[in-house]
Order: sequence, then C-alpha cells, then structure tokens
Amino acid sequence: MRRKEREIKDLATMEKIIGGSSVCRMGLCDGDRPYVVPMNFGYREGKVYMHCAPEGRKLDVIGKNPHVCLEFEADLQMKYAQEACDFTMYYKSVIAWGRAEVLKEPEEKARGMNVIMGHYTGKEYDFPAQALARIVVIRVDVDEMTGKQNG
Amino acid sequence: MRRKEREIKDLATMEKIIGGSSVCRMGLCDGDRPYVVPMNFGYREGKVYMHCAPEGRKLDVIGKNPHVCLEFEADLQMKYAQEACDFTMYYKSVIAWGRAEVLKEPEEKARGMNVIMGHYTGKEYDFPAQALARIVVIRVDVDEMTGKQNG
Repeated sequence: MRRKEREIKDLATMEKIIGGSSVCRMGLCDGDRPYVVPMNFGYREGKVYMHCAPEGRKLDVIGKNPHVCLEFEADLQMKYAQEACDFTMYYKSVIAWGRAEVLKEPEEKARGMNVIMGHYTGKEYDFPAQALARIVVIRVDVDEMTGKQNG
Repeated sequence: MRRKEREIKDLATMEKIIGGSSVCRMGLCDGDRPYVVPMNFGYREGKVYMHCAPEGRKLDVIGKNPHVCLEFEADLQMKYAQEACDFTMYYKSVIAWGRAEVLKEPEEKARGMNVIMGHYTGKEYDFPAQALARIVVIRVDVDEMTGKQNG
C-alpha cells in the first residue's frame, strides 16, 4: 500500500468493516480477463462464505482458476470542496485474497449458509436437504487481507 | 447470463445505474491473481474515467495487462423473510469490460477529470497544469456491458 497513513493494520477493525458491508465483490481471472461480481456473503474467523446457483460463469471460472479477490466497503461519503483538488472520498475498505472451494458435504454447506444468513439476520436457520442440494456454497479461506481508510 | 428474467438490455437503464453508483470496483488480473479495488469514476458515452496516483499496484498491473472489469451497483436492499430460502437481495448492477488506457495529454486528462467531477458534482472545474501533472487519469472504452436487476 502506497499511502501508509491510510492503512488499517488491526484485524478487528477490518472484520468490523466486513461486518458492515452489505455485499462483497468477488474478483476472478478468466484467463487474462478479469471478472467482478457482487455477492451476498458471510464471514467467520478468516473464512468467507458465498452461495450461488449450481451453474454459471462464476463456477466455470473458479473451476479453472480458484484464486479470488474479495472487496468490502463501508461508510462511503464524498467530502465536497470549493476546488476540485480538495475533494476527497471518505471510505473504509478491505481487500482479501484466497482460494475458492466449492463445499460438498451437506452439513458443511448448511454451516456456510448459516454464516451467510447470520451476516444479514444474526439468526440461524434450518436448511432442508432438498434446498441444500440445489445451491452451491463457496468457502474462501483468506490468505491475505489489507484494510484502508480515509477520514 | 443464466437468469434471463433479471437481465437489463436497455443501455439507458444501465447508464442510470452507473450514474447512481458512488464508486465502481475495478477488477484486474495480476498474472492469474485477481485484484479488485474501489475507484471514484465518471462515465460519459461509453467511456469510464478514473484517476489515481502516478505510482502503485493498479498502474503496475495495468501496464502488464490492461484488461479491466468494472462493477457498478445501485439500490441494494435485503428482502427479509421467515424461511431462509425466501430471503432475496434486491439490487441493480452493471458489469463492464474494456481496456484501461493511461491518458498522456493534459487537455485529455482535464476532460477526463471533469467527467469524474461531473459525476459527483454536476459541475466543471479548472485544473492547474501542476495539479494535472501529479495525477494519472485512466480511460476505459467499454467493449461490453451487462446489466442485471432483482426487484
């Protein structure tokens, strides 16, 4: 990170930003072509869970290259000014890297879905086997994470 | 796109979503490793303008592989429900692909900066030559764009 004064080094602060994000943006490389897609997610103890349909471009790309970059944001606010160069965007953001793994076991899928549901509701739910069979749950074990803030 | 009923085909609708986004997320491929970073931006007639400092990872990666994916969102809202499977996220999103070009000419940089400033303020500004020399302005000519909405 170039601007060291904006770096967030504290894990708890980064986790709070992640907890305050309504979606994350998952970046993939489809060969040398980037692909970014917004995803509902849940985070727990260094792992990000997301879900998707059993087919589609995301899974095709992950099947070829499981490396993902996840971007989270909170508290975006433009600070207006008189002169163009004095404008600044206040923000908090976290960027995380890891490998996407498609979960196979129903119990693990249900746990992942409950981390996602927990992010939005703070509650746990029952997932019928039939429902779990119809969805794909992805887990990303975060290898590296950086946080940045302005303001 | 798998769910055709959610596809936005109309350019004006996609441009409205872009116009309502406070930042875009730029996805790059650093070799086979994705990199996603939030960016202030402006959009005009199929071109996206962004600015950054004259050095940093973004420019290093773009120098090696100029392909970018830009993601825009508007109107995110979770629809809560009793059963987990009935939850849904309302959203509007646009994903655009193109090549990033670093602008060289001061006049072109000033025009790009005014597209960015216009996005946030609706106004135009003067940019002193010294200020322009200190910033990098990137232009992405959009080759392909898809829109999606739920709700």
